[in-house]
Amino acid sequence: MLVVVGLGLADETDITVKGLNVVKAASRVYLEAYTSILLVDKDKLESYYGRPLILADREMVESSSDEILAGAATDDVVFLVVGDPFGATTHTDLLLRARELKIPAKTIHNASIMSAVGATGLQLYNFGQTVSMVFFTETWKPSSFYDRIKENRQIGLHTLMLLDIKVKEPSLENLARGRKIYEPPRYMTAGQCAAQMLEIEEDRGEGAYGPDSLAVGVARLGSDDQRMAAGTLKQMSESDLGPPLHSLVLLGRRAHDLERDYIREYAVDEKTFDKCWEEQYGKQ
Amino acid sequence: MLVVVGLGLADETDITVKGLNVVKAASRVYLEAYTSILLVDKDKLESYYGRPLILADREMVESSSDEILAGAATDDVVFLVVGDPFGATTHTDLLLRARELKIPAKTIHNASIMSAVGATGLQLYNFGQTVSMVFFTETWKPSSFYDRIKENRQIGLHTLMLLDIKVKEPSLENLARGRKIYEPPRYMTAGQCAAQMLEIEEDRGEGAYGPDSLAVGVARLGSDDQRMAAGTLKQMSESDLGPPLHSLVLLGRRAHDLERDYIREYAVDEKTFDKCWEEQYGKQ
Repeated sequence: MLVVVGLGLADETDITVKGLNVVKAASRVYLEAYTSILLVDKDKLESYYGRPLILADREMVESSSDEILAGAATDDVVFLVVGDPFGATTHTDLLLRARELKIPAKTIHNASIMSAVGATGLQLYNFGQTVSMVFFTETWKPSSFYDRIKENRQIGLHTLMLLDIKVKEPSLENLARGRKIYEPPRYMTAGQCAAQMLEIEEDRGEGAYGPDSLAVGVARLGSDDQRMAAGTLKQMSESDLGPPLHSLVLLGRRAHDLERDYIREYAVDEKTFDKCWEEQYGKQ
Repeated sequence: MLVVVGLGLADETDITVKGLNVVKAASRVYLEAYTSILLVDKDKLESYYGRPLILADREMVESSSDEILAGAATDDVVFLVVGDPFGATTHTDLLLRARELKIPAKTIHNASIMSAVGATGLQLYNFGQTVSMVFFTETWKPSSFYDRIKENRQIGLHTLMLLDIKVKEPSLENLARGRKIYEPPRYMTAGQCAAQMLEIEEDRGEGAYGPDSLAVGVARLGSDDQRMAAGTLKQMSESDLGPPLHSLVLLGRRAHDLERDYIREYAVDEKTFDKCWEEQYGKQ
């Protein structure tokens, strides 16, 4: 059987008891290592789980899924995914492939940023569609996120922004043969996301949001070192929430006073926060 | 410290290792037992966790939160919540109260239906706001859900419907004194939800959806007994997915072919499914 196991958000103890039991008994254990990361490294996971982990990069998962599924008709093969397994389309592909091969599959769920973001104090019922933000380059600034945010904002809803990560484990073999050199990993910060959002608003000028729109930045959610900050997009673009992973939530006008009470605690600047709230939020 | 621990979706082994360690060491452990339920009973949890659990009903959480928080300034008090702790507003209230009392608090996250619904094969990025459906009575048929669904459908997004549960542990003391008699617990089925949706569409007639709109019903997600069914709302209203808990997803027109490939596997009737898909979905 293929068992896709969610690892949760922060460290090696965020796995469920059910997941850990399956990992310990599996014939092979893959670790998906390109759509998200835990805040601890592979060695720590291996020693805690008591199992060697095979790193699965995008290439392996997308082009060599049959390698992952080899033997899964008779033995248990585990595929570990940070968060909950269904954040990324990729894993649906793997399950579809298992189905084609008549390999039974099951999922062991875990926390995902898509629901854990409720820890900000913003109500999950008030979120619209989730949006991804990629690193802009000089020549490539994809702005389809803007249309999605605009749709959410028009009906008054919050938008969770999932931030790009560029991770590619350097393969020693490849390095030795000089075939590919990978850049060091990069993780988008809430500040970079806010700055890119403001850049696109300036280009488009459709007023989906502005420098005074309120946002909440979240860093290292679920760890003891978790941090949150609430402020305007302008303030957030200048913020520093420390090491990865970060996410950002842009507030919608339907925000409730209970949400305000909760997030005001970590306002970058309470006076600005109160003013912006008063002008733009708590409206149906 | 107040530690709010998510229990995940199905049974006693869905708790995280981190959560279980906290439960074992806490001075008191409450089990929130009115916004959702696991598929196993309290005795099973108690014997697995090795701790007695204090049932916390709505009345206790909303009116006697200081009782729950007593001693939490110095000792660890655990508050267990099915799913992830931030599904319900109630728990934000408890955390706000802890903050007022200067009691430190933290959350140990877990799987929530709001992200685990990705197991249907529907992409989380394509979901709009989540909506709750309550049991209608002869005289009370609240239909604000209809406006929310309409907003989602207008921009082509899926809607996750969270279904009402009526649970109230009968207090022996109350029973003995004849003060209150509680009804047996009731859990809304995907079929009941679909029927109520069609009833309101008939009343309103605004065409937010119709009997031929496609939906996916999910039952007992995360358990070995998990079941899914895809079909029209009319078909879903006549469906029987077995014991609780159920959820229902109404599809939006932006649905992708990859989503179709995945959910077609559990179509109630493939011919009807294909016809409805062809006519209404996969459109931007």
